[in-house]
Amino acid sequence: MSMPLLSRSRRVRPTPFSKRVDAAGVKAYSVYNHMLLPTVFESAEADYHHLKRHVQVWDVSCERQVELAGADAARLVQMLTPRDFSKVAVGQCLYTPMVDETGGMLNDPVTLKLDEDRYWVSIADSDLLFWVKGLAQGMALDVAVFEPDVSPLAVQGPRSDDLMARVFGEAVRGIRFFRYELLPFQGHDFVVARSGYSKQGGFEIYVDGTERGEPLWDALMSAGEDLDVRAGGPSATERIEAGLLSYGNDMTLDNTPHECGLGRFCQTADAVDCVGRDALLTVIAEGPQRQIRSLAIEGEAVPPCIEPWPVTVNGEHAGQVTSAAWSFDFECNAALGMIEHEYWEPGTQIMVDAPDGQRVAKVMAGAFI
Amino acid sequence: MSMPLLSRSRRVRPTPFSKRVDAAGVKAYSVYNHMLLPTVFESAEADYHHLKRHVQVWDVSCERQVELAGADAARLVQMLTPRDFSKVAVGQCLYTPMVDETGGMLNDPVTLKLDEDRYWVSIADSDLLFWVKGLAQGMALDVAVFEPDVSPLAVQGPRSDDLMARVFGEAVRGIRFFRYELLPFQGHDFVVARSGYSKQGGFEIYVDGTERGEPLWDALMSAGEDLDVRAGGPSATERIEAGLLSYGNDMTLDNTPHECGLGRFCQTADAVDCVGRDALLTVIAEGPQRQIRSLAIEGEAVPPCIEPWPVTVNGEHAGQVTSAAWSFDFECNAALGMIEHEYWEPGTQIMVDAPDGQRVAKVMAGAFI
Repeated sequence: MSMPLLSRSRRVRPTPFSKRVDAAGVKAYSVYNHMLLPTVFESAEADYHHLKRHVQVWDVSCERQVELAGADAARLVQMLTPRDFSKVAVGQCLYTPMVDETGGMLNDPVTLKLDEDRYWVSIADSDLLFWVKGLAQGMALDVAVFEPDVSPLAVQGPRSDDLMARVFGEAVRGIRFFRYELLPFQGHDFVVARSGYSKQGGFEIYVDGTERGEPLWDALMSAGEDLDVRAGGPSATERIEAGLLSYGNDMTLDNTPHECGLGRFCQTADAVDCVGRDALLTVIAEGPQRQIRSLAIEGEAVPPCIEPWPVTVNGEHAGQVTSAAWSFDFECNAALGMIEHEYWEPGTQIMVDAPDGQRVAKVMAGAFI
Repeated sequence: MSMPLLSRSRRVRPTPFSKRVDAAGVKAYSVYNHMLLPTVFESAEADYHHLKRHVQVWDVSCERQVELAGADAARLVQMLTPRDFSKVAVGQCLYTPMVDETGGMLNDPVTLKLDEDRYWVSIADSDLLFWVKGLAQGMALDVAVFEPDVSPLAVQGPRSDDLMARVFGEAVRGIRFFRYELLPFQGHDFVVARSGYSKQGGFEIYVDGTERGEPLWDALMSAGEDLDVRAGGPSATERIEAGLLSYGNDMTLDNTPHECGLGRFCQTADAVDCVGRDALLTVIAEGPQRQIRSLAIEGEAVPPCIEPWPVTVNGEHAGQVTSAAWSFDFECNAALGMIEHEYWEPGTQIMVDAPDGQRVAKVMAGAFI
């Protein structure tokens, strides 16, 4: 399937790095939070291999921030997620499923505690800002909720520490996973977190101030020349191999965190009181009826999964595939799908109705990498 | 500027009509409410001339619906908009600016009153669902808020009445502007409204049920063969000529309805109590400091406006252009921009910093068409 053309207008926002991304030879984009997300530079395959061996700079500005600031910010952040915030320290980043009153997933952001009364919620592809604003308004909370001028730039790949140390100093090496530190570049302190949407290691720099984007991009590219640093973007193949979920692809408002395998991030059964608590307690009591699994699909490379592909076992409904891509390293199709509990045991053979025909597939015990 | 490629995944949703749109030779899309919006078939110019002379069928499924149903639905709908709902009858469609507590625009949907306790809010490009759900949850209202399986299909152009009468019967000719009627096709009653995102006349059919999409598309295409019916989509040029605003392009959360020239839809100064009322009363008292104007930009065809273009008068800041396109009929560039009040009088000459150089432009008294 060839890719269609994307019409441009202000409504599909460029980023602070768009000129650099363009100069780096971007070949395709997705649209994410009303913003351009670069997806392909050399080719899906070349970008994938390079990510796993070297280091890349990713324009993930589309991970917009929802800032919560004010007296009720801490109360509000706990209402938003079943994840327990009572012992979270300033400097921590938390993966935080966020649900509505039915327990349905609204987004799966990373939340940064910047201060006791200030948070950044770094969002996946839905206007979570509107949910948080609506809730705060409806409850008359004393909190400001807005999208600040902050655009994350990710540095991902096995040489990330080396590259980042050259630009932000040796201190970057000491940053623990899902922690951030304030580190200076050209006289400004940036929030630098050890995180990112790959399993290849790396950082996300929260670039606060559009005007600071290009100097930082240029410094990373210049410092990393001998590391073969390149512009890149999230690799569909690598993230599927790694079992990293994508909101809107692998989960929607129709899914609970428990269906998404995110039960370990829900402390609903303990003290945590959040929107959707009652619904989630019911899910915990009854157990989820389906859950996301990594899948290996046989045969040649599948096309992109643009609508869920039905999964069956002996002709019975057994679930659906939601993301799939040819794995260049594993030489099979890596996939993620929501599988009914009768069929979710590792090793179960399933049939997948891909658009180009039915395929044999297997439920895996875990991610590929 | 050539158009970039769009990567596909489930997160950028296809529509009930996507197979037909593809078969009709779609050449480009935008992404709108996480969904494909077809934008170009033959060419921007050919599509534009055809729309103005014949009749087109548009896949505007991306105008998703937010359904409000239940005891508090009427109370909630009035909280969402400064437009007065007290005298609205079942069968009416209302253009409804929706604002947050600061009076900033969240969306500019059309709201259909389906029953005393049931509404469809037909949205522009933002997840208004999240705002409405958040507000309802925060206030503990007795109302269901959800996205139903409804995908609008628009029939636009001067031959719309003739085409629609062949499929839905002569009753369509009697539907008044911004009213809807329930009309049968193949045994099912569809909501058919006289409305649409062009000034060429026409209808929007609210296709409830994905499975009903292709039969209806096929019936329209087949019935309109001798009318030269074609697949089309909103024409950037035609809508700019017509002064039809686009949320995310011409207005954002940073703008009040009064800045957008939508004051006539705000009955805030009367009895209407909605979120943002106090903020809007202040705007009414002080008057907006800037407002959207139609503009004519001299010179050759401008590129698409993907970031606001600064507007100056004698070197002073005078506003920004937010949408622009070459008008094939008027043989100049038609544009929309937010102009400061010192400069918004018709006939004022302004300078526009387009990406390819500075242009002379003029503030118009109204839209081109």
